[in-house]
Amino acid sequence: MSKKVTELREIAKIEAERMREANPAQYFERNLHQLGFSEPEHALLQTIKEMTDNALDAAEVGNILPEIIIEVEETKEEITLPPQAGKIRKANMYRVRVEDNGIGIVSNKIALSMGKVLFGSKLFTMKQMRGQQGVGISAVILYSQLTSLKPATVISKIEGEEKATKVVLKINVDKNEPIVLEEQKIDWNKEHGTSVEVFIPARYTDKIDKYILELSIGNPHASFILRKKIEGRKSELVINRTTEKIPPPAKEIKPHLSSVDPGILQRMAEVDKDCKTLVSFLSKHFASISPETAKKILKAAKLSYNLPPKQIKADKILEVARNIKLRRPKLEVLSNIGEEAMIAALKNRFKDAEFIAAVSRPPWTYQGIPFQVEVGVAIGGKEVANYINPKRITVIRLANKVPLPYDLSDCLLYKTVNEIDWKNYGLELNERGVPVVPTVFVTSLVASKVPYTSPGKFAVASVEEIHDELTLALQELGRKIREYTYKKRKQESIAKRYEFFRGYYEVLAEEVGLITGGKVDVSNVLKRLFKEVRNVENVE
Amino acid sequence: MSKKVTELREIAKIEAERMREANPAQYFERNLHQLGFSEPEHALLQTIKEMTDNALDAAEVGNILPEIIIEVEETKEEITLPPQAGKIRKANMYRVRVEDNGIGIVSNKIALSMGKVLFGSKLFTMKQMRGQQGVGISAVILYSQLTSLKPATVISKIEGEEKATKVVLKINVDKNEPIVLEEQKIDWNKEHGTSVEVFIPARYTDKIDKYILELSIGNPHASFILRKKIEGRKSELVINRTTEKIPPPAKEIKPHLSSVDPGILQRMAEVDKDCKTLVSFLSKHFASISPETAKKILKAAKLSYNLPPKQIKADKILEVARNIKLRRPKLEVLSNIGEEAMIAALKNRFKDAEFIAAVSRPPWTYQGIPFQVEVGVAIGGKEVANYINPKRITVIRLANKVPLPYDLSDCLLYKTVNEIDWKNYGLELNERGVPVVPTVFVTSLVASKVPYTSPGKFAVASVEEIHDELTLALQELGRKIREYTYKKRKQESIAKRYEFFRGYYEVLAEEVGLITGGKVDVSNVLKRLFKEVRNVENVE
Repeated sequence: MSKKVTELREIAKIEAERMREANPAQYFERNLHQLGFSEPEHALLQTIKEMTDNALDAAEVGNILPEIIIEVEETKEEITLPPQAGKIRKANMYRVRVEDNGIGIVSNKIALSMGKVLFGSKLFTMKQMRGQQGVGISAVILYSQLTSLKPATVISKIEGEEKATKVVLKINVDKNEPIVLEEQKIDWNKEHGTSVEVFIPARYTDKIDKYILELSIGNPHASFILRKKIEGRKSELVINRTTEKIPPPAKEIKPHLSSVDPGILQRMAEVDKDCKTLVSFLSKHFASISPETAKKILKAAKLSYNLPPKQIKADKILEVARNIKLRRPKLEVLSNIGEEAMIAALKNRFKDAEFIAAVSRPPWTYQGIPFQVEVGVAIGGKEVANYINPKRITVIRLANKVPLPYDLSDCLLYKTVNEIDWKNYGLELNERGVPVVPTVFVTSLVASKVPYTSPGKFAVASVEEIHDELTLALQELGRKIREYTYKKRKQESIAKRYEFFRGYYEVLAEEVGLITGGKVDVSNVLKRLFKEVRNVENVE
Repeated sequence: MSKKVTELREIAKIEAERMREANPAQYFERNLHQLGFSEPEHALLQTIKEMTDNALDAAEVGNILPEIIIEVEETKEEITLPPQAGKIRKANMYRVRVEDNGIGIVSNKIALSMGKVLFGSKLFTMKQMRGQQGVGISAVILYSQLTSLKPATVISKIEGEEKATKVVLKINVDKNEPIVLEEQKIDWNKEHGTSVEVFIPARYTDKIDKYILELSIGNPHASFILRKKIEGRKSELVINRTTEKIPPPAKEIKPHLSSVDPGILQRMAEVDKDCKTLVSFLSKHFASISPETAKKILKAAKLSYNLPPKQIKADKILEVARNIKLRRPKLEVLSNIGEEAMIAALKNRFKDAEFIAAVSRPPWTYQGIPFQVEVGVAIGGKEVANYINPKRITVIRLANKVPLPYDLSDCLLYKTVNEIDWKNYGLELNERGVPVVPTVFVTSLVASKVPYTSPGKFAVASVEEIHDELTLALQELGRKIREYTYKKRKQESIAKRYEFFRGYYEVLAEEVGLITGGKVDVSNVLKRLFKEVRNVENVE
């Protein structure tokens, strides 16, 4: 109002002129902090996370025992960061390289798979995998070139090739395309695998070691070597695999009809080229839909069986499918850790722990998506004591076998451990609700699709079914803990009584002397007495 | 290992075959829950949030007093949602429409600006705006077609046009393009503006009303009409503007050299076509860089003034720029609420509040980005009592004048209010730390770029400079609260003494009678006595 006609009209036209399209590289470059690339400390961890995710996936797809080398080298180049609150801040440039023995990348796809955002083989597949979105490694390269101006170096080799391919690349953000600066065949003393190297301003903390250790608990069949060079000092953390057994491979699944969105169902039917009828379309594309079930659904939806898929009425079909009990999907598609393997990994990590246990629940589903939870615990000993945060219950959270280092308080895995009243299972708690004896819990969720709370994959969202399964697993773990604490308390009680008797040692010796009319072996008497006490205890 | 050469090679080739590209529509369709589109209740609020964001921005860009109509109609169509934990769940289909009197959209850009993800006029501009990423409204349409199969209907008109343009559209997700189902010129009894209508399965709760009320506190110059039809019953919430003064328009800013990333600086120089020298490039594209400052920086970076921009050494320049004190950017680019306007809005919202105050801090910067914080408070009265959550301190959080309805505990705006010890400012707190007298705080952050924690724009990330400014604002507000609580306590104390004297009424009357030798007007005596008491109070 109070505006001349022409003026508002002009503004609308100027706005229209300003409209333009952005590509995913531009979008994610601007939103890197939401993917975990913010400050030097976080960015280093996030870089290693994305690289090791890919490394483990590349081994898993080939059913290979992973051998992963992580190099973190602080270079002498010091750079100034953007000032914060008026203060000048510095950081060193780091070289970060991760090498795996995975299947490798076919040479003509190396640049694209690294240097194009939303490009990859894992995109939108319904299969348990660490990475899934086609953003991770390209975000690392975006962050690296943004902050260091340096390109990434990728070396990859597939089985049977004599030479490896080395590609030095950057990302052209305005085109969302890789810029290949150098490409050549090189000798590489490796049968197959991939190596990715970037430079970023960073700051090393022992969170890196902790992350790799947690990663090894989620992947006990993998070996890790973390080579560090920090402040000129070299050191190495070697974690050998604690099992030679490769976990069962994860399988791709079909969507479940009860939880697919109408818009997706409609589109799937419209683009389908193979199926002649709705019956064949439904039974081909969805989990646990036999032709008979498809017919039943179509009949209830008042749609003819033989309609071509294009004539689908997705809303009608889903109205029926969501109101009947469909068979749950096949659950044997997940690759879990396993109780034995988790126990072995925990024993390897916490060598002097007094008690270690693990519980695997059978797989279940949420929204038609298979998932499985496993939990573990390590109690007592110096290594656990050194590991825990005394201010709260310590929970190692794993999602598809990858540690979740941030957003603890938002995470279903952490919240559920906190809901359990561990006192009921014999764990004495301090005023903060933290076990008095050092205790670390492990919670692991594997799923064909993990419900993360954000694109950074920092925390698991609250899903009723997962919460229920996790609670059952933790309660079962609790019962194992109770057995242990019960035994331990009994032992302590026996020890106490023994001490009690020892207090009467002198008196006893005298009394026994009087009765027997001479000196006797008091320790023998004590032993016998103590045996009786023990028998009394066992009867209790 | 233990694999034949050919097998791993084959897997690598199959993986390469599977590699493909995804577009932003596909990415966001799959990740809608991260943008707030999850369950029917959330999705309704998120839809209204995105639509009103755009509505207010469309008025602001034209310097128009906004008049916004929000229609929320529960239709009779009931649909079944995907089952959860084995339970069948239903929701009604809702029609949601938001109409504004903004500048309107030029007709040939209506479909694109609504039906293409990452397309818009606000993309990546450094300017205080509600929407900024080019995702919001297209996410609404993606969610709507996914869940209801129904298209969106957009009507828009720019000033001077006789007829409005009506476009009925969907989004082709596989191409990230709008599909125009219908386009025609229609009569529209409006000078200019835009209306967007979608259908989604939803569930109405009074969070919607609360959201609009909070929105009106952030935008006291806007009028809102919320028309509801829920369970067949019509109702209307009308909020008239409490000020006719349009806030100062937000201005676009240039980036600040101290906080630009090396990669961005390098790219800006490489694509620059207008500037002949680095001096002119730096002083043209960056805030507060005069040609003299540019020369100083280049000299320290050992770069010749007259180098063409393409020969920039971004790292060298930033190494200098981040180590010297650059002038802070011009701060008069923000559009804040203002103390008076916030007080008027709070008075309108909490009509019987006993105390209302507001504090605006002057603008400041974080990472070269101008921001400004404002805070307000309403204490006492039934309306505040009805509004608050008694379990915690109630904080209305506004970011660029838009309420943040989720992720409270993660949000800097909430956390900072909780850090203040309100007891020091005379607010009595209960054992939960919540003021005993009903109290609602308002915190508002406006910034050329708000540091959100996630793409859903639910919470403000922790930024030291914003935290400091917010603390100062809340402390100043605290001092105003203390004045009020001090006065109030004095009044209560006076009232108490008065009551005390009233208790002696009879005795006094008798005593006075004895002294004066006859009956006197006791109330007069009391009044005089009370006056003395009051004087004593004032001296204290």
